[in-house]
Amino acid sequence: MKLVESESLARLAERNHGVLATIHSERGVDAVPVVFSVDDGFVAVPIDRVKPKSSSKLQRERNLEADPRATLLIDHWDPDDWSQLWWVRVELRWETDVDDDVAVRLADRLSKRFAQYSDKPFHRLLVFRVLNVSGWAGKGE
Amino acid sequence: MKLVESESLARLAERNHGVLATIHSERGVDAVPVVFSVDDGFVAVPIDRVKPKSSSKLQRERNLEADPRATLLIDHWDPDDWSQLWWVRVELRWETDVDDDVAVRLADRLSKRFAQYSDKPFHRLLVFRVLNVSGWAGKGE
Repeated sequence: MKLVESESLARLAERNHGVLATIHSERGVDAVPVVFSVDDGFVAVPIDRVKPKSSSKLQRERNLEADPRATLLIDHWDPDDWSQLWWVRVELRWETDVDDDVAVRLADRLSKRFAQYSDKPFHRLLVFRVLNVSGWAGKGE
Repeated sequence: MKLVESESLARLAERNHGVLATIHSERGVDAVPVVFSVDDGFVAVPIDRVKPKSSSKLQRERNLEADPRATLLIDHWDPDDWSQLWWVRVELRWETDVDDDVAVRLADRLSKRFAQYSDKPFHRLLVFRVLNVSGWAGKGE
């Protein structure tokens, strides 16, 4: 059954790990697991130094420069009881001009949630505006 | 660190749940959690009746008819120890003309893995050819 928007947003706010998909002009979709924070219509994804990367500008950033649309998916998986499954999908648009207040709040949430960032702060944030939220949850059979 | 292809494929073969992303002409990326099976260069995703759906043809099918490219992502998440993180990403192309042998093997694997399909067989299979596999795993700090 579809989730109402408020329920989808509530489930999104309780999570901090999902899959971010962006568009690669040739390959189609790029998808990568990310951590994120949410604040009042915005989602932030850190680019960090905790996980070694092979280049300074990530493919997802090059993708977003060419096409600012992105999608974030979170889901609950239970291999045995599919009545417990649910997911929330967020349509996003990458924003390069975000209020400092918003960016600071999003950054604070990430830092507070993940002790990893105490030692090694993330390098920068990708900030997205939430365009649409949808969700689905299984029913008991 | 990047995973070599054989290692990525080995991790893919051990999983059966991931995120499938397809391209929506207007919204950009559609992403949805799926179960899947793998066999010798092909990936199958069932369209089933276990989870009630609101329409007979899913958005992902309409997307694939317009653009057969898709991406499957699996990942391992550990909020506390990021040295344990890994993911595998599979570039796929939807195939409508698949050998019966291949389709049967892919279907068998799904049926054997998920008892849910004993009671309610899936309705049909989306079969994809694997075009490329890449993967990444965190190092211990």
